[in-house]
Amino acid sequence: MTVLLVHGDREYLRAPGEELQTDLGVLTVPDDVEPGQRLETHLGDEFVVREPRGPDLFDHFERTGAPMMPRDIGLTIGFTGAAAEDRVLDAGTGTGVLAAYLGRIGTDVVTYERDPEFAEVARENMRLAGVDDAVEVRTGDVTADLDDLTGFDILTLDTEDAPTVVRQAPDILVSGGFVVVYSPFVEGSRAAVEAAEEASLTDVTTHETIQRRMTFDDRGSRPDTRGVGHTGYLTVARWQ
Amino acid sequence: MTVLLVHGDREYLRAPGEELQTDLGVLTVPDDVEPGQRLETHLGDEFVVREPRGPDLFDHFERTGAPMMPRDIGLTIGFTGAAAEDRVLDAGTGTGVLAAYLGRIGTDVVTYERDPEFAEVARENMRLAGVDDAVEVRTGDVTADLDDLTGFDILTLDTEDAPTVVRQAPDILVSGGFVVVYSPFVEGSRAAVEAAEEASLTDVTTHETIQRRMTFDDRGSRPDTRGVGHTGYLTVARWQ
Amino acid sequence: MTVLLVHGDREYLRAPGEELQTDLGVLTVPDDVEPGQRLETHLGDEFVVREPRGPDLFDHFERTGAPMMPRDIGLTIGFTGAAAEDRVLDAGTGTGVLAAYLGRIGTDVVTYERDPEFAEVARENMRLAGVDDAVEVRTGDVTADLDDLTGFDILTLDTEDAPTVVRQAPDILVSGGFVVVYSPFVEGSRAAVEAAEEASLTDVTTHETIQRRMTFDDRGSRPDTRGVGHTGYLTVARWQ
Amino acid sequence: MTVLLVHGDREYLRAPGEELQTDLGVLTVPDDVEPGQRLETHLGDEFVVREPRGPDLFDHFERTGAPMMPRDIGLTIGFTGAAAEDRVLDAGTGTGVLAAYLGRIGTDVVTYERDPEFAEVARENMRLAGVDDAVEVRTGDVTADLDDLTGFDILTLDTEDAPTVVRQAPDILVSGGFVVVYSPFVEGSRAAVEAAEEASLTDVTTHETIQRRMTFDDRGSRPDTRGVGHTGYLTVARWQ
Repeated sequence: MTVLLVHGDREYLRAPGEELQTDLGVLTVPDDVEPGQRLETHLGDEFVVREPRGPDLFDHFERTGAPMMPRDIGLTIGFTGAAAEDRVLDAGTGTGVLAAYLGRIGTDVVTYERDPEFAEVARENMRLAGVDDAVEVRTGDVTADLDDLTGFDILTLDTEDAPTVVRQAPDILVSGGFVVVYSPFVEGSRAAVEAAEEASLTDVTTHETIQRRMTFDDRGSRPDTRGVGHTGYLTVARWQ
Repeated sequence: MTVLLVHGDREYLRAPGEELQTDLGVLTVPDDVEPGQRLETHLGDEFVVREPRGPDLFDHFERTGAPMMPRDIGLTIGFTGAAAEDRVLDAGTGTGVLAAYLGRIGTDVVTYERDPEFAEVARENMRLAGVDDAVEVRTGDVTADLDDLTGFDILTLDTEDAPTVVRQAPDILVSGGFVVVYSPFVEGSRAAVEAAEEASLTDVTTHETIQRRMTFDDRGSRPDTRGVGHTGYLTVARWQ
Repeated sequence: MTVLLVHGDREYLRAPGEELQTDLGVLTVPDDVEPGQRLETHLGDEFVVREPRGPDLFDHFERTGAPMMPRDIGLTIGFTGAAAEDRVLDAGTGTGVLAAYLGRIGTDVVTYERDPEFAEVARENMRLAGVDDAVEVRTGDVTADLDDLTGFDILTLDTEDAPTVVRQAPDILVSGGFVVVYSPFVEGSRAAVEAAEEASLTDVTTHETIQRRMTFDDRGSRPDTRGVGHTGYLTVARWQ
Repeated sequence: MTVLLVHGDREYLRAPGEELQTDLGVLTVPDDVEPGQRLETHLGDEFVVREPRGPDLFDHFERTGAPMMPRDIGLTIGFTGAAAEDRVLDAGTGTGVLAAYLGRIGTDVVTYERDPEFAEVARENMRLAGVDDAVEVRTGDVTADLDDLTGFDILTLDTEDAPTVVRQAPDILVSGGFVVVYSPFVEGSRAAVEAAEEASLTDVTTHETIQRRMTFDDRGSRPDTRGVGHTGYLTVARWQ
């Protein structure tokens, strides 16, 4: 199991047996490392061992683009009710944070990434997250394999050709299964909705999420004066 | 396993062996019912059998108050990275939708509900959701038991005395564990933040979520003219 | 001057000399009526006389469609700095609330309405608001007259062919003048932006406004659980 | 009349007779300067002359703090229907952008600023804006003068002791007059609402405004990924 080594603000993800070298000194992660342990560098500085959680994966995965944020991943799980033992088909792996979250909640994920280098990074990220058994990263275009992809509970799409896949959703999904399309753009969301309606999916909705932090200080309580920007629209639909 | 019986817009949650009586006729759910099956009433009308998913539980649970919405449940999972085998302590069970979602993603939940009747309804809801093994609904006040509650990965609070529990979070949570407080009110969120800071929790943030649906029609694309109102603030903090 | 006759929640707009007949009795507005006076019906019920203000016009104008809301009118004034003695060209008069507000802040407005019946209602509304000297309602299509329309400080458009007019903005506006396009739709706003850029307008921005009411009660403070929906996007641009 | 001298992105506010010295050379603004003219520096570079508009005042006034934004000023005008010949009482002048906007739409403004240096800057800003006849900047605390302040159509407050003034609104305002309180904080807004209710004002509402820019490019249309933060709540109430 990969662990997070934490010292104040600094955090490093390392597998058992791996070495950590920083200006605080060098340490080797024991093979039997356990969360909660404290490891000391040769200079005597201490790191706390933590099991990495979802938000840590977002922070520490090697990135091959802007990963989906914990907020949008959470909304995807909330809207679909993704649950342990669900089978999920995901396209547009990218950094793989969504796939890793899905693997961590016990689903069985097949995810497609067209860029072979990105796919390789995503595979390594799945190993780091300890979900390489749950998440199969396939290199290639999901549209090439659609004829063989069936019996999934959930279909998550973060690709430009999402509408093509949505049109096939009735063959991909079990009855009651959900498709979620993430798109930063109005046009992409609109195309996803049109594809979902063409395919006779039901409960088709597109959600826009605006999230702000609150600031509490001596003067009072208010939304943050720093804004939080747009990430993407989530289009959700269901196959009867 | 409880199943969802679906005919057009109508949906009913029933256990194997139970009877469904509607104006479409009567049917009995077979003991070996399977999702995807079609069951016929004595009048010849057909119901499709579905495995109920998270959003179905939100729709069909017996309610003892306004349940947390799939959106806020999803955000709670996204912000905490709740995952299979996590131990979750939840207070303010209410209808139990959050607990059921958490059970469905493989976590082990202990949830406290002060109102004995609400607790009983929640237990029945857990049975309906098939997560009664994963979710233990305790009748009573979590603050009475705090001395014995330890080693949890996640603490979720939807009660008025949440700040009292937050102050104990360092004893309840493992290193790296998260607390989430749901409160409709600014004052409740502020009190949660102050408690988190007193307890030396880190990464303390309060999030306000505004979500709108998009409308796509022949005239164009736009946010819905019907608004979506406020649900609650989510305050998130972490124990180092 | 038209006045507002107010009794509790009831309000009526009447000109001097006009009669008000309600179940509270009959009264005739004196020719020398003054705000602050109290007028009595023949049954002895009292109405307070008020000078109607902008929001009253929004409430009491005869409507020929959904009028622009005080909020969007205010934003239009804020973004353009519309001021007394400005010359404003407005197209898509509709009910005329924007035109009346502009007349009330001392601008000189020429406004085009294609529908002759709507134009007639708008003219009557301008009389009610006491701004018929300031606001000229022309029946017809502004695009037919563009060659003769020049020297305006501000151009406000709430029509489907707004982009056509925006492309002519450099001939219509003085240096430093502003154009504002109100559109409910993303596509309409995008087309307005493209037209503004083609016409070499500067400072081109599209603003989306989400507004919520706060609720303060004994339990605490929070945004309203009833949502406020989308009205329109405001696209603003300036001619150098 | 003060004019804006514009050369590309550079803009300077100068009165007739004043000199402009920049690296583009020196020029003196003629006494009979007119908007639309082009003035040349001694090095041959040209500046266009513009009449400054509301947003220019926001950009070019000397600041004594964060001024109210054109958006919130516009909303204040929209919610109150402020119009030419209205009498406005304003407290918390600050930089004076709100007062200048109000002067520019023909209202007669009395504004209070406690800090004598700020008041002096505000007076100079009113001169720059050409509204020194319309806006009287008084140095001092409005609460000291409340007994003499009466007959106002609109009361605008951006001070910490706004609730004290709100409680006096019935004596300050004419029937149908509006009060607007601007506060960045929930607590300040709540106190304003409570004061308005104590004073039997009607139509008491607090509005929170979230505004985002839209981005239109070759990939599509979407809200800006840069967020726009919170400015302030606007509490509006009316005296019957």
